[in-house]
Amino acid sequence: MFISFEGIDGSGKSTQARRLVQALTAQGTEVLLTREPGGSEGAEEIRRLLVEGCGERWSPETELLLFTAARRDHVERLIQPALARGAWVVTDRFADSSRVYQGLARAELRQLVEELHRLTIGIEPDRTFIIDIDPAVALARGQARGGVEDRFETLGLGFQRKLREGFLALAAEAPGRIRVIDGNGSEDEVAARVLAALA
Amino acid sequence: MFISFEGIDGSGKSTQARRLVQALTAQGTEVLLTREPGGSEGAEEIRRLLVEGCGERWSPETELLLFTAARRDHVERLIQPALARGAWVVTDRFADSSRVYQGLARAELRQLVEELHRLTIGIEPDRTFIIDIDPAVALARGQARGGVEDRFETLGLGFQRKLREGFLALAAEAPGRIRVIDGNGSEDEVAARVLAALA
Repeated sequence: MFISFEGIDGSGKSTQARRLVQALTAQGTEVLLTREPGGSEGAEEIRRLLVEGCGERWSPETELLLFTAARRDHVERLIQPALARGAWVVTDRFADSSRVYQGLARAELRQLVEELHRLTIGIEPDRTFIIDIDPAVALARGQARGGVEDRFETLGLGFQRKLREGFLALAAEAPGRIRVIDGNGSEDEVAARVLAALA
Repeated sequence: MFISFEGIDGSGKSTQARRLVQALTAQGTEVLLTREPGGSEGAEEIRRLLVEGCGERWSPETELLLFTAARRDHVERLIQPALARGAWVVTDRFADSSRVYQGLARAELRQLVEELHRLTIGIEPDRTFIIDIDPAVALARGQARGGVEDRFETLGLGFQRKLREGFLALAAEAPGRIRVIDGNGSEDEVAARVLAALA
């Protein structure tokens, strides 16, 4: 099984990805926890170009090509080998993030996301959980974390609101693969919702 | 006018690109000299991921995506603004390098190079000069330069021979745009051949 967690920054998706891996590991399943952009050695180097610096550092097209390069490295060097040996893979973000973030930059980029995905990535998660939360709450959490990886957070609350709408629209497009999880409440409450949705 | 110089490492193409810019500038033309991978601030950062490290650092597909990301940044932030204000642009390598290097890695990648180019780059030089030289001579020159940017040179003489064949095959495909220049002889002799071919 290949599982992705998606959602806006500060939604709690990274915490929930970790919680799911802990729960699966406790059941005796071999599970790899990874993230995007990054996850493999080369992709983590590309990540630094993407998450640091100012919001206008790259055009949406260049940014999408860099995300796709990182994803290709991640898939071929980490995800596919793990799946091939029978392990589960849980990733904090995957291609849906590109669909939402780059599609938001300009609507016609959504088509470019799909074409690059078809040409160079190909695979989709078996199941995707979108952790859904009020963007104002999420943004406050993200800012509380601090650090240098704030390039997307600097784009502001209006941007985060549109991202949330984008994720919910995507869930409506692919109801078989994507499950929207209410991200309000305690960590335990949300983790229980994820496990129930996976069962 | 948008002009590219192509050829294997050590062929003298960088020197000849500079010589052409000097000759055009002396004639009063505004000319910008640039190079790939790189040429713009962001693309130079991507360049470091591409030209340093071991030959197997990236798969051919990931490498191609990184080259394409760097090219997109270069085109939109440097080449197109310069052409738009009426300047000439001379670049040391452009898309033909991807066609030859990545197409050499695996024949079917040539198709991917063309699709990514169509989707995200679009433009071609008005004129391309391939500086053609014996790969054994070129490799000796490249190694004499030293430095950390030797990732492609470490691939050896057999690889350089195939690259040369690839460039010559490309010239045969696009005889209207591409001119093959004999790279043997002195710097002055080769520069005179380039100017004659441009006239």
